[in-house]
Amino acid sequence: MQNITEINDLIKLISKLPGLGPKSAKRIVLKLINNRDEIIKPMASVLAQVYKNVTRCNSCGSLKSNIEGCSNCEIIKEKYKQICVVEDIADQWSIENSNIFKGYFHILGGTISSVGNRKEDLLINSLAERVVKDKIDEVILATSATVEGQTTAYYIKDSLKKTNVKITKLAQGLPIGGEIESLDDGTLYSAFKNRSNLKSNSE
Amino acid sequence: MQNITEINDLIKLISKLPGLGPKSAKRIVLKLINNRDEIIKPMASVLAQVYKNVTRCNSCGSLKSNIEGCSNCEIIKEKYKQICVVEDIADQWSIENSNIFKGYFHILGGTISSVGNRKEDLLINSLAERVVKDKIDEVILATSATVEGQTTAYYIKDSLKKTNVKITKLAQGLPIGGEIESLDDGTLYSAFKNRSNLKSNSE
Repeated sequence: MQNITEINDLIKLISKLPGLGPKSAKRIVLKLINNRDEIIKPMASVLAQVYKNVTRCNSCGSLKSNIEGCSNCEIIKEKYKQICVVEDIADQWSIENSNIFKGYFHILGGTISSVGNRKEDLLINSLAERVVKDKIDEVILATSATVEGQTTAYYIKDSLKKTNVKITKLAQGLPIGGEIESLDDGTLYSAFKNRSNLKSNSE
Repeated sequence: MQNITEINDLIKLISKLPGLGPKSAKRIVLKLINNRDEIIKPMASVLAQVYKNVTRCNSCGSLKSNIEGCSNCEIIKEKYKQICVVEDIADQWSIENSNIFKGYFHILGGTISSVGNRKEDLLINSLAERVVKDKIDEVILATSATVEGQTTAYYIKDSLKKTNVKITKLAQGLPIGGEIESLDDGTLYSAFKNRSNLKSNSE
């Protein structure tokens, strides 16, 4: 390796990204070097713009453009009656991509009692405000099926008791394609507990 | 996906990098967003610096710091007697990492007759100048064992005939760990043609 300060710094930074190690970072740097005007220049500029213009929204917790406003809760055209509460922006993106849910999102920014996170660190207070302001009918808790996720869901339910909003959480049970023999006890327990009555459904 | 111009632009740019598709680009963007000051800010700045300060050296073809000079041929402290000629900077980095060769590098920037590359596009003329200036004893041609790589090697040999320098090329044969039954005919042919005499070696 040649010893060029800028290149070494760049390799170090790229190695910090998920799924990339020093070897793939080098490959990426070589690609960048060979595409100075097509990639390096616009990427430096767009990163600077993201740093300047994109922050987390104080109200919904999603990404917000400081120029255009928050596309998740401010400049949204549709009026919805449901808010889906998730832990991270990654969860929001997954649910949006699935096209299963059409409504508002509320991003907590983590879970209670996961390393270092207290409930004060999560965006919970503004949820009740949004429920009132947007005349929401239902809050769907889509936190993970982990101890932390379910604790957080329980706490949010509690924090909304002054409002009259309906509160639901995602079903737990067999994942599609899940083979009984390979499932953990917790999932099996949920699947038994939440079993549905086939006869009454079909009649 | 939320519709934020800067984020969409960033995902598009990252998707162009080797080994990364839209899905891993999104994962990387989320990591960036959660590390504004640790990654986004320094990365924007170091990319801008690379764009401004790092170019290809006109003499050796490797990466050159416009501030410090070329660490491959200008500000190098050791005096070597050998130049290793490679196609790309990636090849230089691989050989450097292996610690097999200690000497100067000369980076052609591709091969003759690969798509769109003519010999005028390759850094060949300055090689003869370097051989004379640095009093080089041996030029080692480390181009790929492909038709293009070998054509290029042959052309370089020709371009150096006015100098009296020794010209060698890398051996062709079985790769370490290579099983005979899985080798292609070209490699087998080279291995037979370049076979070594065990008896005379041991006596």
